[in-house]
Amino acid sequence: MKYENGKVTELKIAYIGGGSRGWAWGLMSDLALCDKISGTVYLYDIDKQAAYDNEKIGNSISKIDSNYGNFKYVAADTYELALTNADFVVISILPGTFDEMESDVHTPEKYGIYQPVGDTTGIGGVFRALRALPMFFEFAEKIKEFCPKAFVINYTNPMALCVAALYKAFPEIKCFGCCHEVFHTQDFLCRIVANELGIEKPKRNDIKVNIVGTNHFTWLTKAYYNDIDLFPIYESFCKKQARKNEDDSNQDVICNGGGVFTDGQRVKMDLFLKFGYIAAAGDRHLVEFCPPNWYLKDPATVAAWKYALTSVKWRKEELRGRLARKDRLLSGEEEMKIVLTGEEGVNQICALLGLNDFITNVNLPNYGQIPNLPLGAIVETNARFCAGGITPVFAGNVPTTIKPLVDRNVDVQRMILDACWERDLDKAFIAFITDTQNTLTLHESRELFDEMVKNTKEYLKEFF
Amino acid sequence: MKYENGKVTELKIAYIGGGSRGWAWGLMSDLALCDKISGTVYLYDIDKQAAYDNEKIGNSISKIDSNYGNFKYVAADTYELALTNADFVVISILPGTFDEMESDVHTPEKYGIYQPVGDTTGIGGVFRALRALPMFFEFAEKIKEFCPKAFVINYTNPMALCVAALYKAFPEIKCFGCCHEVFHTQDFLCRIVANELGIEKPKRNDIKVNIVGTNHFTWLTKAYYNDIDLFPIYESFCKKQARKNEDDSNQDVICNGGGVFTDGQRVKMDLFLKFGYIAAAGDRHLVEFCPPNWYLKDPATVAAWKYALTSVKWRKEELRGRLARKDRLLSGEEEMKIVLTGEEGVNQICALLGLNDFITNVNLPNYGQIPNLPLGAIVETNARFCAGGITPVFAGNVPTTIKPLVDRNVDVQRMILDACWERDLDKAFIAFITDTQNTLTLHESRELFDEMVKNTKEYLKEFF
Amino acid sequence: MKYENGKVTELKIAYIGGGSRGWAWGLMSDLALCDKISGTVYLYDIDKQAAYDNEKIGNSISKIDSNYGNFKYVAADTYELALTNADFVVISILPGTFDEMESDVHTPEKYGIYQPVGDTTGIGGVFRALRALPMFFEFAEKIKEFCPKAFVINYTNPMALCVAALYKAFPEIKCFGCCHEVFHTQDFLCRIVANELGIEKPKRNDIKVNIVGTNHFTWLTKAYYNDIDLFPIYESFCKKQARKNEDDSNQDVICNGGGVFTDGQRVKMDLFLKFGYIAAAGDRHLVEFCPPNWYLKDPATVAAWKYALTSVKWRKEELRGRLARKDRLLSGEEEMKIVLTGEEGVNQICALLGLNDFITNVNLPNYGQIPNLPLGAIVETNARFCAGGITPVFAGNVPTTIKPLVDRNVDVQRMILDACWERDLDKAFIAFITDTQNTLTLHESRELFDEMVKNTKEYLKEFF
Amino acid sequence: MKYENGKVTELKIAYIGGGSRGWAWGLMSDLALCDKISGTVYLYDIDKQAAYDNEKIGNSISKIDSNYGNFKYVAADTYELALTNADFVVISILPGTFDEMESDVHTPEKYGIYQPVGDTTGIGGVFRALRALPMFFEFAEKIKEFCPKAFVINYTNPMALCVAALYKAFPEIKCFGCCHEVFHTQDFLCRIVANELGIEKPKRNDIKVNIVGTNHFTWLTKAYYNDIDLFPIYESFCKKQARKNEDDSNQDVICNGGGVFTDGQRVKMDLFLKFGYIAAAGDRHLVEFCPPNWYLKDPATVAAWKYALTSVKWRKEELRGRLARKDRLLSGEEEMKIVLTGEEGVNQICALLGLNDFITNVNLPNYGQIPNLPLGAIVETNARFCAGGITPVFAGNVPTTIKPLVDRNVDVQRMILDACWERDLDKAFIAFITDTQNTLTLHESRELFDEMVKNTKEYLKEFF
Repeated sequence: MKYENGKVTELKIAYIGGGSRGWAWGLMSDLALCDKISGTVYLYDIDKQAAYDNEKIGNSISKIDSNYGNFKYVAADTYELALTNADFVVISILPGTFDEMESDVHTPEKYGIYQPVGDTTGIGGVFRALRALPMFFEFAEKIKEFCPKAFVINYTNPMALCVAALYKAFPEIKCFGCCHEVFHTQDFLCRIVANELGIEKPKRNDIKVNIVGTNHFTWLTKAYYNDIDLFPIYESFCKKQARKNEDDSNQDVICNGGGVFTDGQRVKMDLFLKFGYIAAAGDRHLVEFCPPNWYLKDPATVAAWKYALTSVKWRKEELRGRLARKDRLLSGEEEMKIVLTGEEGVNQICALLGLNDFITNVNLPNYGQIPNLPLGAIVETNARFCAGGITPVFAGNVPTTIKPLVDRNVDVQRMILDACWERDLDKAFIAFITDTQNTLTLHESRELFDEMVKNTKEYLKEFF
Repeated sequence: MKYENGKVTELKIAYIGGGSRGWAWGLMSDLALCDKISGTVYLYDIDKQAAYDNEKIGNSISKIDSNYGNFKYVAADTYELALTNADFVVISILPGTFDEMESDVHTPEKYGIYQPVGDTTGIGGVFRALRALPMFFEFAEKIKEFCPKAFVINYTNPMALCVAALYKAFPEIKCFGCCHEVFHTQDFLCRIVANELGIEKPKRNDIKVNIVGTNHFTWLTKAYYNDIDLFPIYESFCKKQARKNEDDSNQDVICNGGGVFTDGQRVKMDLFLKFGYIAAAGDRHLVEFCPPNWYLKDPATVAAWKYALTSVKWRKEELRGRLARKDRLLSGEEEMKIVLTGEEGVNQICALLGLNDFITNVNLPNYGQIPNLPLGAIVETNARFCAGGITPVFAGNVPTTIKPLVDRNVDVQRMILDACWERDLDKAFIAFITDTQNTLTLHESRELFDEMVKNTKEYLKEFF
Repeated sequence: MKYENGKVTELKIAYIGGGSRGWAWGLMSDLALCDKISGTVYLYDIDKQAAYDNEKIGNSISKIDSNYGNFKYVAADTYELALTNADFVVISILPGTFDEMESDVHTPEKYGIYQPVGDTTGIGGVFRALRALPMFFEFAEKIKEFCPKAFVINYTNPMALCVAALYKAFPEIKCFGCCHEVFHTQDFLCRIVANELGIEKPKRNDIKVNIVGTNHFTWLTKAYYNDIDLFPIYESFCKKQARKNEDDSNQDVICNGGGVFTDGQRVKMDLFLKFGYIAAAGDRHLVEFCPPNWYLKDPATVAAWKYALTSVKWRKEELRGRLARKDRLLSGEEEMKIVLTGEEGVNQICALLGLNDFITNVNLPNYGQIPNLPLGAIVETNARFCAGGITPVFAGNVPTTIKPLVDRNVDVQRMILDACWERDLDKAFIAFITDTQNTLTLHESRELFDEMVKNTKEYLKEFF
Repeated sequence: MKYENGKVTELKIAYIGGGSRGWAWGLMSDLALCDKISGTVYLYDIDKQAAYDNEKIGNSISKIDSNYGNFKYVAADTYELALTNADFVVISILPGTFDEMESDVHTPEKYGIYQPVGDTTGIGGVFRALRALPMFFEFAEKIKEFCPKAFVINYTNPMALCVAALYKAFPEIKCFGCCHEVFHTQDFLCRIVANELGIEKPKRNDIKVNIVGTNHFTWLTKAYYNDIDLFPIYESFCKKQARKNEDDSNQDVICNGGGVFTDGQRVKMDLFLKFGYIAAAGDRHLVEFCPPNWYLKDPATVAAWKYALTSVKWRKEELRGRLARKDRLLSGEEEMKIVLTGEEGVNQICALLGLNDFITNVNLPNYGQIPNLPLGAIVETNARFCAGGITPVFAGNVPTTIKPLVDRNVDVQRMILDACWERDLDKAFIAFITDTQNTLTLHESRELFDEMVKNTKEYLKEFF
């Protein structure tokens, strides 16, 4: 890495999960559009062919525009090759395959347990963690061995637990976890500001927020646009929408998305009217942290709250689409579209290189930024990115009324972390029966747990 | 109060709820049997006649045996009379009547929610707290006014919240809360020790324990008899009983109690086999802190786990018996039986007067004795009683696996405390829907909450 | 206050100590140069004539350039007039007069105790605090009464104790304390960067630092220029200068200031070579926090370390110069010079109004930003200023080797705060004999303390 | 180890420093007088002959009285032999010889620094720690290897640092440090109680105290005899004695000791009159924690405060006496006197074996028993000893006025611990110049430090 004239060259970025069709392509695009940094991205993946494919795709970008040639892509067969002296490590993997995810999400449905996402918390989150964490312990050990001073950005879910696993196995790691859910909520606030104040839609960064919570269950305890406190505006908006809901008419179009991922924000707004703080994640995530009978009792309830249960069948289909696109990209039939993704990874890299100085939300160990959560738990708050590293901004307490739901999540995550560290399925079972989403009897829990272990045993070998 | 020759005379004890037929009579008995202290007990009760009746009953004790004349009893019509310069204050009241308790315990049954006790946590605990806490704020203010240096012993449930309310309204109060549930568990361990080691049943005090938790959900993280670690003995005993359960044969008789209050210890032993720590309260209490489908799904599940759902109908009948006894005691038809109750109140009084120095479990604000629970939360641990006051003994962390269940309780209690302090029924509703025992939809919760408010509105006037 | 088109109008700023000739004029200048805000500044001072003079001087600025007419100045005879509905309160006062300060600084010299500043810590700091804090308790009560939601900026020394007093008397106050010492150290680093790297001198804001400590004894635990870690550069620079010192030749000119305030940075560099962290305040301040025999044994030692003992005689003369200037300004003989002072007050005001978003160092209660200092102690760290308020940035622990010196200061300050709150001169005496700078016998301490009380008794009436 | 009929047999105790002539003989005596335990004591010493001598002396005790034959003594040449499966480890060593101690105590006198003890804190304490701590790291490693579950009792000074070193090298060690200074203060209170109340002198254990602080600088924040608060009695006594001091007449005889160790309690009483809390250690220790000019400026000041500067010359002579006694004991010319020493080691052993249950003061890591001192620092408070282990009793905060002096000690100790762990003499030098007792210039400090390193270099090899 060299610093010259306000630019950094010869940067080395290692990408674990570098065969991905999604995050990897997005990163390629964001890197191509950043004229301040250049270097090489090493792509490591257990699916080696995927990494080689992405090497080709990545290197093809420079042909679109020679300005895009700032980064070279190299598939790396070994951790050593990928990580040695890396300046940054990006981790974005799928723990297991969509077959395992199908077990995570859909097996519990036989017992009446529905999960709109199933990758963070709840029944599915427990099992996904059991597969992921042993891998993350290994990543941490390799990073410790080959590039202990690298900054490590994790995008993998279950976010908080993956980051926790990295710190558990290598406490000095300089890791943080990134997620865009808060951004989407800021964007929702922008739409509301525009609508309610009759002004042009502001930019997301102009919405200043204070954030507390744990990934996918983050809460805004303050939100300002310029000097305008957005809480009264949001309150009146939520009340108006709630009345529209009661009339069974549609909500305003600014609440609507569409398809498998988007939601009508009804849960988010209902949570505001109950708790007085702005839940800042997609409704599909938020409901997984609440008592299941609030919003997730059954498909009818889900439909009434206007959000989707994302099926793994859909994910598999969508993957088929991405694989087809990969083929077209490789053959040259299609050209990568180079546009900003809206993710902040590249901005963060620039800031940590001293090229920028800004504040955004990330997942970090709690050093006291949220005083009423346990020290060391992975929490999501604002943090400052600049030369010298990442420092969390003091966020204050989780509000008293929300704390029971956050604590349950933090406590169960801690148990899962221990269970994975100790390779202890009995402890994992206690986490399983204690999770908010588990409404089964002890007997049913045992049956379901055993079935899910069986379904995914290929990826649980370390526990036996 | 005067100290002479190892005895204390002219002690003034104020008893709030002094018209009680139960605790009050027990205290009279224990006081009569203590030859180190003497003085006067002032009985205050909103049911003034009950206080006058107990004055008579208390003063009749000296006729049984002149040695029992160490304490005089005086019914006090006002706080001022009862409390002025009191050395000790005992609080043991029923918040509302059994009619309100009937609403607490049985109204939720319409929605499939069962409660074996319903006075500590869960749906019933929330409503009992709403009635009790405004009274306890008043008690604290009166104590602050008339006897700020008195030691205050609370026996009222919800224990932790009543103690919390006293500290909230008068932070310098010297209050602690007493409960005998841990004693019963120590006694169960004595029976096991005798049975398993083939020795004479030890005395309860010879079982040395470390205690963490919150009232009625206390856990022993250590238990010794002499130098013998009781955990392996308890483990083998629990496993043996579990096998007997599976065979559908009966458990050993040492587990059995009988009737409305006692239980077969099955829950307690199952919790040990899951968590590896000794739950130290009656099974009827313990189940109210666990996810409801574990042990409390429906009456059949309750029956299978061999504990009782104590009905308020039974309580009302039992009260009729006590009222009849009161009449007999007043008329002289029956004579008070003077025997030790096994409660430790009088021993504690003696120790605080410098006549003793011992360690027992009590409910106190968390000053750090349980590092992983919030400071200020009312927790149950060991404490030293001696001249100079009560000091908690360091208890250590709540074990990771148990923490989610304890946290939920502590968090919801905090919300109820705030709701009562602020007289805010909306906040009480959030506590209500967040409680572990509440499995209803938001709509059902609203219906049930409103009905229970209506049922008990006589005692909730301050909230309107 | 009104927000329109990215500007804020009708702002109300109250200035306590508004008759000042120094800070007040600087603020007028900075306000005149800020085109984003406009409004009125209310000047309150116990020296009413001084406030009226400044009203005139302030209002004369618009005559220099009509663009400078954005703020009007009004002398306010009462707190009520000055504070009612103020958006911001600026506090910059002299506690007592320079006669009292003469006692603070020079009376201890009879006992061989020298003080280069004497307004923050040490013997002089104790007495200045005894005069100042009762006033600050009053300010806090008035702010609570008339403008509880205002942001309050304190510039008065002893900084940490004045801010602590405001929070003690009104815990919800939105107050922070500002000091430019860190800026000067950043500027010193800029000079070193330019010198050592052979580049143009960077701007102060381009030096990214992490700050821990207490006002005037702040330490940089990280310092970066772009991606360049400045610690090795600073180390080699300090070693080079240390060798030059030994050769008795002069240090490099970039270290030199001149006159009563500036210093040769020798103490600062010696501290770096001992502790490995960058002390970030003037040497005159730093030495007052170290054991006195390190750098402050006697005037010869002071001379050897190339910093000055600022005499109060000099301050009095300098004041005479400012008073003469005031007369010239009032008469129109001289015109105010409108230039940026380099202070950040106006930038901070803008940011808190939502017009900016930046990070700088301020004095705030410790919410956990420095985990190894007591919660609530006033500490100096980075903080974010933006719409919604000030939030400290996590700063990390005070390094182990520096902690004894910081703790002594924090502990003695706490004692002084208590002594002032309780108006307890006995407690103040304990603080006095415990202060790092006090090397006297108990007998001498008593003599000196009594003499200094007598010298300043006019301002200590509340203690009798 | 076997437990039978309320007695423990086959106990294994390892004694590191088992060649001692003092503590070892005292322990032999106390063990002989305890009829509840029996077993073997393994004596390990780097002076092997001393261990063999003590083996003989120990085994000779049974000849005095056959009841005294409960313990056998075996000199052990290796750690392995001494420690393997030990139930208890006692550590009581002299770090270096009295020649090194002479350097510790008397070399600083050349610079006007006097030390009455010089083994805990101050200049002497720093150097004693530099010699001792590497040994204690080794002890901890050996204990971890051979008897990780043993209870470890340390009697060696510097107490807090030796215990800290054991925990640093083996965090799971079950170690506590014992000291009798608090006992002596309790005894002083007993004499005062008898004198002032005109009653028979109470037993030490009847004085109930709350203790906070660090070893040799412990403070009683409460003291009761029965229900009598001793603070007002102590206050009136101290005032009376202070008046007698002023009249230059003698203090009451109950204050007096005599000879090299004892003191007239004047410092202790003066500290009470200043701080309002009872300092609970000998005056010779207390003065070493206060600013040196308070009580320790020079020999005349020492004389005025009526305590002694214990010279190492005296210690050497006294050792000669003990060596002569050893010869007489070995030859049979003299017989060991079997009397209780007043130390609590054997009682503690019994309690930890489940034979007792009591509370006394010990040195333990801070788990929160003193909330305003750092977690993990070795603090002295009450703790409960019973089956299952030692648990600290909550002690509360160090009072605000005393905290600066305690913090300085705790902070400097932490630095010394780090310096020893890292074998870093530069860090040790920072501790040396930061210590309360060091009043030298930086130049003098360097000279003295270097000289003391040279004097004791034989024992500092690991630092080079």
